[in-house]
Amino acid sequence: MAAPLRIGIAGYGNLGRGVAAAVRKAPDMELAGIFTRRSPDQITPPAPGVPVLPWDQLLEHRDRIDVLMLCGGSKADLPEHGPALAAHFTTVDSFDTHAKISEYFAAVDAPARAGGNTAIISVGWDPGMFSVNRLLGEALLPDGATYTFWGKGLSQGHSDAVRGVPGVAGGVQYTVPSAEAIEAVRSGRRPELSTRQKHTREVYAVLEDGADDAAVERAIVTMPHYFAEYDTTVHFISAEELTRDHGAMPHGGFVIRSGSTGSGSSQVVEYRLDLGSNPEFTASVLVAYARAAARLNAQGDVGAKTVFDVPPGLLSPKPADQLRAELL
Amino acid sequence: MAAPLRIGIAGYGNLGRGVAAAVRKAPDMELAGIFTRRSPDQITPPAPGVPVLPWDQLLEHRDRIDVLMLCGGSKADLPEHGPALAAHFTTVDSFDTHAKISEYFAAVDAPARAGGNTAIISVGWDPGMFSVNRLLGEALLPDGATYTFWGKGLSQGHSDAVRGVPGVAGGVQYTVPSAEAIEAVRSGRRPELSTRQKHTREVYAVLEDGADDAAVERAIVTMPHYFAEYDTTVHFISAEELTRDHGAMPHGGFVIRSGSTGSGSSQVVEYRLDLGSNPEFTASVLVAYARAAARLNAQGDVGAKTVFDVPPGLLSPKPADQLRAELL
Repeated sequence: MAAPLRIGIAGYGNLGRGVAAAVRKAPDMELAGIFTRRSPDQITPPAPGVPVLPWDQLLEHRDRIDVLMLCGGSKADLPEHGPALAAHFTTVDSFDTHAKISEYFAAVDAPARAGGNTAIISVGWDPGMFSVNRLLGEALLPDGATYTFWGKGLSQGHSDAVRGVPGVAGGVQYTVPSAEAIEAVRSGRRPELSTRQKHTREVYAVLEDGADDAAVERAIVTMPHYFAEYDTTVHFISAEELTRDHGAMPHGGFVIRSGSTGSGSSQVVEYRLDLGSNPEFTASVLVAYARAAARLNAQGDVGAKTVFDVPPGLLSPKPADQLRAELL
Repeated sequence: MAAPLRIGIAGYGNLGRGVAAAVRKAPDMELAGIFTRRSPDQITPPAPGVPVLPWDQLLEHRDRIDVLMLCGGSKADLPEHGPALAAHFTTVDSFDTHAKISEYFAAVDAPARAGGNTAIISVGWDPGMFSVNRLLGEALLPDGATYTFWGKGLSQGHSDAVRGVPGVAGGVQYTVPSAEAIEAVRSGRRPELSTRQKHTREVYAVLEDGADDAAVERAIVTMPHYFAEYDTTVHFISAEELTRDHGAMPHGGFVIRSGSTGSGSSQVVEYRLDLGSNPEFTASVLVAYARAAARLNAQGDVGAKTVFDVPPGLLSPKPADQLRAELL
């Protein structure tokens, strides 16, 4: 048995806690430490003996960490942490600003190569497993169309937008894929679908005292970019209902490739996620890719990587001959 | 633009014809030749100008073929062709006798290495894409259970078994997954399912003149290994109905991983295929892996490989930066 893979966590919000939980389910890993920009004594370790340390001690622990999991946000944290930490550590992150991935890849690649490290960026389910399935769909069925549906799930960005509306004391937003649209895609007919036909949006909002419900509803459903292009339903609920019924973070969705082959045969490939906890699943994906990052680095394969560059076998703790015998 | 990848086809049955059709849909490939053990003049080329050649001229064409697709059967052909041809060509095959894959891998690996070739074995959907999804399922959700369902689809082996029953003039067998079992698995409850609970079998058979329908039905439904462990329905039809209604080769199925993460959240991942033509889809997968075989070989990565060893990005004709920009 090889020595366990030592995992460090940089940033301890929902994703970092999910990573800590996923590492404990991995037979070949151990938690080397959690690094936080908050005061470490405010944080309860996920298990006895796991050190919680201040962020500025990261570099001192370089020799005690095989893979560092970057668990900050994509907007403000990762653009800074990714390049800075890939210079010193083999890393995995969940950078998810789709439009800026190429730029982020380049920013991480140079310091990772210079430091002899491997940095797998944009890991999770979208980007991540959904991206792999979009790629496989068009590679296997070049004559076809790809459809991505999200939900039913809690959208953080849209929930933030709801909470920013004057008169709203709290709220959440669920993205709901259209069952009719999914059935049309599954049929192999390759429908053209508008944004409005693919998803609806459901809002659960708590009003501030004295707020005008009609005005709040109108402000939400007409908000450009977030809600105006969709059919949006707003439900007003109490603060107690919000806490009691809307605390979980479910999500998921579908990637469907509908194509045809030689004789005109219809071929439909569907990948579907039904997630009870979005951050815990994302964290589980990150932890599997940490195994791959360490193995790629051991092979001398340094620099920035994405899920497209990782052979599936490197994600499993089982050796290649066992995988062939058991799973092929 | 690089020179097109030159594909050879060794064996021209259903799978070989599917490969020829899939190569014509690939923007970066051309058909270098079809090699057959039949008389070449009995075969209509898939397109004008594609040479159809006798099997014993294969080695003479070594320098005109980048990847050779081995399209023979797993029982008698591939155990001989795989090792013999991997000594001389970079190859892709669909060896699908699950219990003998480890042995076949070793038999192909040595000659491929000696010849400086790359041989991707056991490509298709099961083994193949289903195998990848079984691996991903347990790597991402180590606390969980994996379920594979096949169908609704035409099973070649079970159809052969039906046709071997005395009194049967012709027939086909469909494997049908249980909708109830699939729903139970999707729910996240991780049910224990017996063989009988997961699939049923439907037989459409044509009787020989004077055959006893009750005796034939009994011989089918009690056949050990093939039908005895299942609920099997036998429909007797005419030879005309068999030809008219049962000539297609649909198949497909589901790989579902049901797991839980940290806080006990249920997480369900499902991969589903709904295939109008089983051999054409299998051929499409082989053709995408031919691209990967050529690229691995160009990197000096020789020997036997499986789908577990291939990074998804190598399957696409698009360069890595375009994949990151468009699909991640």
